[in-house]
Amino acid sequence: MDFKEQLTLYVARTESGLKAHTPAPDTRPARLHEAMRYTLEAGGKRLRPVLALAACELFGARADALPAAVALECVHTYSLVHDDLPCMDNDDLRRGRPTAHKAFDEATALLAGDAMLTHAFHLLSSAYRSDPALTNALVLELGDAAGSRRLIGGQMADLLGERQKAPSAEELEFIHLNKTAAMIEASLVMGALCGGATPVQLERLRSVGRLTGLAFQVIDDILDVTADTATLGKTAGKDLASDKTTYIKLHGLDKARRIAQELTDRALSELRQLPGDSSFLAELIAGMGRRVS
Amino acid sequence: MDFKEQLTLYVARTESGLKAHTPAPDTRPARLHEAMRYTLEAGGKRLRPVLALAACELFGARADALPAAVALECVHTYSLVHDDLPCMDNDDLRRGRPTAHKAFDEATALLAGDAMLTHAFHLLSSAYRSDPALTNALVLELGDAAGSRRLIGGQMADLLGERQKAPSAEELEFIHLNKTAAMIEASLVMGALCGGATPVQLERLRSVGRLTGLAFQVIDDILDVTADTATLGKTAGKDLASDKTTYIKLHGLDKARRIAQELTDRALSELRQLPGDSSFLAELIAGMGRRVS
Repeated sequence: MDFKEQLTLYVARTESGLKAHTPAPDTRPARLHEAMRYTLEAGGKRLRPVLALAACELFGARADALPAAVALECVHTYSLVHDDLPCMDNDDLRRGRPTAHKAFDEATALLAGDAMLTHAFHLLSSAYRSDPALTNALVLELGDAAGSRRLIGGQMADLLGERQKAPSAEELEFIHLNKTAAMIEASLVMGALCGGATPVQLERLRSVGRLTGLAFQVIDDILDVTADTATLGKTAGKDLASDKTTYIKLHGLDKARRIAQELTDRALSELRQLPGDSSFLAELIAGMGRRVS
Repeated sequence: MDFKEQLTLYVARTESGLKAHTPAPDTRPARLHEAMRYTLEAGGKRLRPVLALAACELFGARADALPAAVALECVHTYSLVHDDLPCMDNDDLRRGRPTAHKAFDEATALLAGDAMLTHAFHLLSSAYRSDPALTNALVLELGDAAGSRRLIGGQMADLLGERQKAPSAEELEFIHLNKTAAMIEASLVMGALCGGATPVQLERLRSVGRLTGLAFQVIDDILDVTADTATLGKTAGKDLASDKTTYIKLHGLDKARRIAQELTDRALSELRQLPGDSSFLAELIAGMGRRVS
């Protein structure tokens, strides 16, 4: 199977997993569950679930990684829904469609976000209950990655940075390490936990995730200034318009491209030191880099 | 030890547990962690942690119930913080102090709420990792109680009810069973899980929790019309002013009082069928009822 076929397969598994492992849209109260489905089924690259499914297959199969992949996408989607709210980024468009608070209303979007976050942990404890040690490790990993020191901490630092208008390179790295890289790390680590990886292998994958996540954010900054709204599926040029500190503002476009390349190369080098066939993950990470090179 | 001494002890344990088992307020980013502490340390009755600690002691001690008690209070506090936001109840006062979005700002309050919810699950997986089966059971219980079918579903139904202005008695019960009773049940059940209760005992305590939670909500409705703002620590008469459907509006004050009494009596009767010294829990539940009788 070539890369594109494999990717299509992982994405299709994710889409069916999202349907199978989240409450039906007619669950009471229907408006809440419709809003959850609306945001979960808005498409997107499904990067985090794909990383989890691929990482699991590097090692075999202690357990099916699909529920963990769905939990990761639930957390990612909740963070986007809350991030889009008027009191945060106030964005009207996400993945080419009206954001949740536009399609529904602010209160429903807030609660749907809360519900997806909660569901992620409930799903882990329900799907993996026959292997409580695995549940425990997965909840610990997701709780850390999504928590106040990492994902939410990164969001908060990002907001504070926008307010002060001049965060340093160190502050920008704190934001990206936590706002973006934390969940990429967790995706690979949680997939590998389901695969039965050893602690040393888990830490190597965490390193791949950290480097990939940082690269991903630099690439996102580059695309904001080089791509158009239709390609992005969200408002382009927004960072520039809001005078937000990005890698571009800090280093310029050329150096940002070099940083993205260097991070990608380092991630690939770490990946090569793992056992199993990592060609899919390598191509995925290299392909992300090519979008902006 | 008499009831009041015991209650004081449980509350004091909760307060020190909240400090010990949540991130220090100077954790980076400080503004986020300060907002978490501001809301967590605002006092309140600590009903949920007290129920968990007391339920644990009915059965002995498979594990210390304090981390579970703190997790419950984190979830309760997050739900209040989000509920107070302008797009929800838009409340300025909570526990006698400015609400989180008034003391900080909306974005910080939103993220602090998200962070407390996430922290609850992370804490369970971290504190009970030496007993993964217990972690799994606790996460499953909390994830269910706090999820889209229960706590959040109840909030959503409450909002929808306010919009349509005339929810039925059945809809009102759905709201209270989920918005209030779910977390009271979970408090008793999670405490009892830490105590090592059997499945039959857990289900009996769940029943005590459901009845107590329903009673608690009826009592809350009664106090809204009979107590003043200073006593409540939140704006009194708000339900009446907003023409919200409550037990009072539906049944009148006298019948609401009888319903509260009946629910309390049934909870006490279930409680008496459990082993161990349940006199503290009995007094706590009976005392709640006496506030409005």
